[in-house]
Amino acid sequence: MKRTLLTFLIFGLALVFSSAKAQTNDLLPSWNEGASKQAIKQFVEAVSTKGESTFVPPAERIAVFDNDGTLWSEQPLYFQLAFALDRVKALAPMHPEWRDQQPFSGVLEGDLTEILAGGEHAVLELILATHANTTTEEFATIVKDWLATAKHPKTGRLYTNMVYQPMLELLAYLRANSFKTFIVSGGGIEFMRPWTEKVYGIPPEQVIGSSIKTKFELRDGMPVLVRLPEINFIDDKAGKPVAINQHIGRRPIAAFGNSDGDLQMLQWVAAGSGERFCLYVHHTDADREWAYDRNSSIGRLDQGFNEAQARGWTIVDMKRDWKVVFPFNE
Amino acid sequence: MKRTLLTFLIFGLALVFSSAKAQTNDLLPSWNEGASKQAIKQFVEAVSTKGESTFVPPAERIAVFDNDGTLWSEQPLYFQLAFALDRVKALAPMHPEWRDQQPFSGVLEGDLTEILAGGEHAVLELILATHANTTTEEFATIVKDWLATAKHPKTGRLYTNMVYQPMLELLAYLRANSFKTFIVSGGGIEFMRPWTEKVYGIPPEQVIGSSIKTKFELRDGMPVLVRLPEINFIDDKAGKPVAINQHIGRRPIAAFGNSDGDLQMLQWVAAGSGERFCLYVHHTDADREWAYDRNSSIGRLDQGFNEAQARGWTIVDMKRDWKVVFPFNE
Repeated sequence: MKRTLLTFLIFGLALVFSSAKAQTNDLLPSWNEGASKQAIKQFVEAVSTKGESTFVPPAERIAVFDNDGTLWSEQPLYFQLAFALDRVKALAPMHPEWRDQQPFSGVLEGDLTEILAGGEHAVLELILATHANTTTEEFATIVKDWLATAKHPKTGRLYTNMVYQPMLELLAYLRANSFKTFIVSGGGIEFMRPWTEKVYGIPPEQVIGSSIKTKFELRDGMPVLVRLPEINFIDDKAGKPVAINQHIGRRPIAAFGNSDGDLQMLQWVAAGSGERFCLYVHHTDADREWAYDRNSSIGRLDQGFNEAQARGWTIVDMKRDWKVVFPFNE
Repeated sequence: MKRTLLTFLIFGLALVFSSAKAQTNDLLPSWNEGASKQAIKQFVEAVSTKGESTFVPPAERIAVFDNDGTLWSEQPLYFQLAFALDRVKALAPMHPEWRDQQPFSGVLEGDLTEILAGGEHAVLELILATHANTTTEEFATIVKDWLATAKHPKTGRLYTNMVYQPMLELLAYLRANSFKTFIVSGGGIEFMRPWTEKVYGIPPEQVIGSSIKTKFELRDGMPVLVRLPEINFIDDKAGKPVAINQHIGRRPIAAFGNSDGDLQMLQWVAAGSGERFCLYVHHTDADREWAYDRNSSIGRLDQGFNEAQARGWTIVDMKRDWKVVFPFNE
């Protein structure tokens, strides 16, 4: 009994010390010292310090993150579009009509001009047409199988390796300070959920995205949810605050994005009372990642850039602020 | 320093012992000993005991609860309908046309025949017509103000007092065993969220319900979400598994309901692999609450009752299984 007691005490002590250490250590080692890192830390300390007028109860420490271009790369194509293109090729033998029908014919001929010109909406349309008519569980398996093997055309890496190391640290830093981290993405909710927990530490119930409709059916007495080729919700621009309200039901206190598609989400978060934090990732690093903003068809940052400057939101200069970009750079 | 260390150790020890005590004490004191209580405890122990083949990792311990008739009463009217009726009366001076228009004229004349005959759908329609055209924040305030003063016609109690004490204990017992508890209700998502955290310990992001559409707007530069008089989603029957998939993104392992409106949710949960638990609350207590099932227009339990019996789901007999019904009975 005495030995058991001692074990308890030592274990408790180890917990106390490791937790104290975690608070004082730099949890953002891939962030260069500078205004961006400083602003993040100041905000987190302000809302986490008991007794301060800026303190926010843990339950209300909600942080929302865009995914494409904010947590992982989105060039030269949204990764979900790369997945969709591979699905078109895989399904083409069963769809001879696709040979004469855009956007499928373009995909099969390797000409993506029409799709790229249409931006995130065109992507969603392609996804709708190619990703329905499976059950939700079948679809999750298809996504996982693809991610296990498909390689990015530039880096040759798995897509789930092309996440931003500084943002992984930021997610973990926020959670270490009792934040609940959510994804709010224009990407497909069921495209993200099979892997976000493993890659970002964000469980499926904290992933919000665009969706197609599903239908409950009994198949030989077994219930399934069938994915229908019909848009349910597009989680982009003014849709983001709507989706945040629908899924979370309270206003986040911090928002992270990289494009004009995130602007309304940042506005919605900024307009709440008390301490607020809004951050844009600005893609400025053509060597280590990509450099693009106002004129890009993917991840355009134009109006949002102006508003961020005018309101004093944090703008991360990827080249200047990030010591490493991808985990495999370390 | 030595004294601080000692304080840490004693504090840690107190935590260890209080937590061990919580596990062995009866956390369901308002449940009579019997098959229902036994089934609940067996299930929770099976999924929580490390090393057992029935063990379920904490992240996957998701439990979903219907609200009306499962967590609080729903007679003689859904409580949200009582709220809606009061809203009709409050708004009537601004809507002279309601005097000649059903269902409003019926409400104003005190004749609810038409509304009751229509069931949960009719309720939702009335809610739509009377609850839109506010911002989400204004609406939350209206709900909170009503709940602070409105009294139940039979008990004279606040509606939020008419929650089931045994179910409050069950929610807490599940959470003490690392379950994440969600509400999945036909009721309005924004009608529930202002009070579920305080009353049930369930935060807004774990509340799923029926909803109307909302729209993001900038009013003099300030973003608001405006509630539109348009159905977004009806979270009833086959809608419940769809909503669970949309909001949670994984299949719960336990489901609790009281009516045929919950049947598909229970089927969906039961059909997953591994340990599963499905429970129906059967309203059998005309003295302490109400007695109704197969022929009730509110909370009809007919097909679901048959299926529960055939599949061996737990059926709570309120009169037999519950020592007390409401917290104010204690």
